[in-house]
Amino acid sequence: MSQIFVDACFRRPTPHTPIWMMRQAGRYLPEYMAIREKAGNFLNLCHAPEMACEVTIQPIDRLNVDAAILFSDILVIPNEMGMELEFIKGFGPKFPKTLKTQADLDALEVEHAADKLTYVYDTIKLVRKELAEDKALIGFTGSPWTLATYMIEGQGTKTYAIVKKKIATDPEYMHSLLAKLTHVIKQYLEKQIFAGANAVQIFDSWASALEEPAFFEFSWKYMLEIAEHIKAKYPHIPVLLFPKGVSGYLDKIAEMGGNFDVFCVDWSTPMELAKAKLGDTYVLQGNMEPTRLYSKEATKEGVEHIIDVMGTEGGHIFNLGHGMLPDLDPENAKYLVDTVHELTKR
Amino acid sequence: MSQIFVDACFRRPTPHTPIWMMRQAGRYLPEYMAIREKAGNFLNLCHAPEMACEVTIQPIDRLNVDAAILFSDILVIPNEMGMELEFIKGFGPKFPKTLKTQADLDALEVEHAADKLTYVYDTIKLVRKELAEDKALIGFTGSPWTLATYMIEGQGTKTYAIVKKKIATDPEYMHSLLAKLTHVIKQYLEKQIFAGANAVQIFDSWASALEEPAFFEFSWKYMLEIAEHIKAKYPHIPVLLFPKGVSGYLDKIAEMGGNFDVFCVDWSTPMELAKAKLGDTYVLQGNMEPTRLYSKEATKEGVEHIIDVMGTEGGHIFNLGHGMLPDLDPENAKYLVDTVHELTKR
Repeated sequence: MSQIFVDACFRRPTPHTPIWMMRQAGRYLPEYMAIREKAGNFLNLCHAPEMACEVTIQPIDRLNVDAAILFSDILVIPNEMGMELEFIKGFGPKFPKTLKTQADLDALEVEHAADKLTYVYDTIKLVRKELAEDKALIGFTGSPWTLATYMIEGQGTKTYAIVKKKIATDPEYMHSLLAKLTHVIKQYLEKQIFAGANAVQIFDSWASALEEPAFFEFSWKYMLEIAEHIKAKYPHIPVLLFPKGVSGYLDKIAEMGGNFDVFCVDWSTPMELAKAKLGDTYVLQGNMEPTRLYSKEATKEGVEHIIDVMGTEGGHIFNLGHGMLPDLDPENAKYLVDTVHELTKR
Repeated sequence: MSQIFVDACFRRPTPHTPIWMMRQAGRYLPEYMAIREKAGNFLNLCHAPEMACEVTIQPIDRLNVDAAILFSDILVIPNEMGMELEFIKGFGPKFPKTLKTQADLDALEVEHAADKLTYVYDTIKLVRKELAEDKALIGFTGSPWTLATYMIEGQGTKTYAIVKKKIATDPEYMHSLLAKLTHVIKQYLEKQIFAGANAVQIFDSWASALEEPAFFEFSWKYMLEIAEHIKAKYPHIPVLLFPKGVSGYLDKIAEMGGNFDVFCVDWSTPMELAKAKLGDTYVLQGNMEPTRLYSKEATKEGVEHIIDVMGTEGGHIFNLGHGMLPDLDPENAKYLVDTVHELTKR
């Protein structure tokens, strides 16, 4: 059975523009909070395939989105490469011991890290069994750059000063780490596909930390290498890239090209601009500002504008330009999905 | 005596490209830390004209930059509009009581807030007395949007969820607040000019929190209104606008125009792009990535690239694309200034 999300990734005709939402499985849903409570903490939930499966499917049931996204966290990779990981309430993820020295790099598990992520593959298998056949399941990973940044900074950062100091003073260290991560991620995505993922998205959440030449040297290059690897082996699996906050670099992205299917557009990049620069080459995913969901009126206006720009003839997957916020109203999320389906009916 | 910085703002010939650095008076300088300690806390330092004067001038002495920027903080305005302000060590500024209701708005001091900022004007007078005549003194303010955001969120934020909820659900509240701030800022900048500021820069540090239509409606419009007001009364005073993180909106900025002199470019906007879109209309200021200052080699490469793009024939003021970081080496900052002066000698 064909999946409208996958069809849209390949510009095949679809009955309407597909929609899903980043962080659609999340804290704004009371049914998510119930499972999250049961799991005890966030990492437990990632480690428990049955519960992770349940929260993956919740937004399909409630919102009727066209794709599910695997419930997991990008930091499970560094965790299985040997770095202790904590999720601190009200603070977020933290690696108490960060990467500093060559010995720290050498100590990382590279060959077998992807093998250890069995709970992710088990979740995918369970979801694929329970999910309606016409709904796609999207697997994902963090980009090498975004993961490397966490591993060196240890936590979220406003200035990225530690990792950028490494870039300025020891770029070889960075490249060595990024190559290790790229190696693990290739295997990780292959195993996700093998378990049943119908598409894979690479999140480069911290792309915007890098000035243009650094972005291409330390991030984009590695994402393209991973995409190339996946597309060569699994041409039927759509690869989606999401470098967040790079609206100034679209000319260079267009110029460089790359073998992937969907370019994901964050809300700080006007859809008109993304379409003009990349719309002929890639299907575009995005990009409604999530806070529009605070009001139905603002939601409708946002949807209409994006559909005005992208049309209803394909080349577009509707999504938010960033993740759902915890205090948004699920009813407005449902209203968004219904409105997109309604307005893009072919 | 002519000031090279002011001349460059008006595209008059200068002996070299002028340079100054955002946060050039700051924690990376041991002589700053000494005064800061003496003041007890950050806000005390803003309130004490003699000490504020001293730290304003320190980077001129040490680095030989071409302009001084008033030492102060953007949040002194809401503070004098009646909002209690704290600077918490290791956390940053905080308004314990944020704006929520119409009564909170009505309680703001608008007519006399600018009159109360005497310590700022006194600092300017002192600096202008002590500073070499050929060095410009730049006054500044936060933009209405950036100040409004602090007043509603109360502190720094990753999601801007509170203020954006206001935008989605009660835009009139926002416009009412922004109009009040615009009124105060016009007076504030006039008084800075009257005290001796040779140029004024409007920092819209949180421009990047807004999607394109919201940016123009809630931020840019008010900045242009302030710029227009100042230019009409003081055409000899350069007005610089710094909306941070709007590389996706440059087409619209170019299309709208506006009466100001210098567009400040953050490092996430490639200088080539800013030049192509805005370089014929405005002098451009910027935009070296501050973390390049971790290494002399990266600094040199950054300077050479920017000068390659902007040339040495005017239309450019060299600056960082964001503020100095506390752990940078003053020696590298001096190396940056010398390199820019050397490579742009006419």
